[in-house]
Amino acid sequence: METKYGLEDISQATISRMATYLRCLTYLEQQGTSILSSRELASLTGASAEQVRQDLSVFGRFGKRGTGYDVVGLKTEVEAIFGRGVEQWKCCIVGVGSLGTALIESRMVQKWGFKYVAAFDTDPHKIGTRVERIPVYSLDELKTVVRRERVAIGVIAVPASSARTAARILCEAGIRGILNFAPQSIKVSEKIPVLSVDLSQEFLKLSFYIQRAEQRARDEQAQIDTASHSE
Amino acid sequence: METKYGLEDISQATISRMATYLRCLTYLEQQGTSILSSRELASLTGASAEQVRQDLSVFGRFGKRGTGYDVVGLKTEVEAIFGRGVEQWKCCIVGVGSLGTALIESRMVQKWGFKYVAAFDTDPHKIGTRVERIPVYSLDELKTVVRRERVAIGVIAVPASSARTAARILCEAGIRGILNFAPQSIKVSEKIPVLSVDLSQEFLKLSFYIQRAEQRARDEQAQIDTASHSE
Repeated sequence: METKYGLEDISQATISRMATYLRCLTYLEQQGTSILSSRELASLTGASAEQVRQDLSVFGRFGKRGTGYDVVGLKTEVEAIFGRGVEQWKCCIVGVGSLGTALIESRMVQKWGFKYVAAFDTDPHKIGTRVERIPVYSLDELKTVVRRERVAIGVIAVPASSARTAARILCEAGIRGILNFAPQSIKVSEKIPVLSVDLSQEFLKLSFYIQRAEQRARDEQAQIDTASHSE
Repeated sequence: METKYGLEDISQATISRMATYLRCLTYLEQQGTSILSSRELASLTGASAEQVRQDLSVFGRFGKRGTGYDVVGLKTEVEAIFGRGVEQWKCCIVGVGSLGTALIESRMVQKWGFKYVAAFDTDPHKIGTRVERIPVYSLDELKTVVRRERVAIGVIAVPASSARTAARILCEAGIRGILNFAPQSIKVSEKIPVLSVDLSQEFLKLSFYIQRAEQRARDEQAQIDTASHSE
């Protein structure tokens, strides 16, 4: 594979689709599928075949025209793009409320090479306990623990009012990237990537799709009515 | 505005960006901004100006060339695309574990016209209690409550093994759309939109951006080293 990491303009949408392709390839490998066309990958992931080819071409040359992609080979290369195999991403969570707990409980991220190694909170009742075997430390211990454990990713799951403080402490500790679940925009040094996750976006998207599905059903019904009326 | 709802191919990426524009416009309205260029909207939301114009053109004609967009007017029209103003979206949550609780506690969705009216669980200790004033009912009561309250959106926050059962009951109750947070794919009638939210995707994206940022920093350092060496 000839990588082209220098490209400046890889969109979030491309990265999202690459993550979807990775999940799909992992599933196909488990099912024993060995060869896959871009058309098949497209139909399984809801993209167009052209989109799949274009996305992959951003990162280099995969597979061969006519013969399709080798599932295991492509999976390994897409994994490498996400840094899997290269390293395991150690994560910590700041804030062990219901959201922080839900994130630790969710087993999904482990499959992709992410591992929670520490959690932090200011509540004395939580400090010293464990959530799903992950130790909960005082926020004062963050810098020491993050450095000692070489934590790469800091997940912010605190209320909006504490989010910026959490981000500042994480950066001072030398964190490599931040995933922010607090409803508060965060600005840190340009060198440290911050991704803010806003779940309300998913609700907005769904409301849009509901309206479209219902509009389509009404249009279809109107066509049927017109047809039966003209008979 | 001349809407073109008939279009079949509005991508999830477009809808995501439209939701981002809406949040941005709402913020600008609060700040008292009255006129906005597509370039400004682009720079505030991380899209390109061309992308902004293209996204909006999918839905009709907004604003005027040269004079920019009227913030309040554009906001109202984008809201209408998401069905805000038209109706309030009543939501229910199936599963009141830490994720379900976190979703109810998050105030973000309320701002966008979504309102939780009921939660459901199978745990007798939870049934009859309230989470943030939202009553928790037995799963057996779901159909009755969803019909009585005219709940539009069902949020699935149960373990993977129970997700399909939850989806089936929601559909039988006449739900209009499903937001699925369980790590389990769900298939229901084609007429009912299902959006599955996978948080591990955000971790994958972040790990990609970390690697890119660090590669860029190394490249810059190498250039500096070369430059100082050649002096």
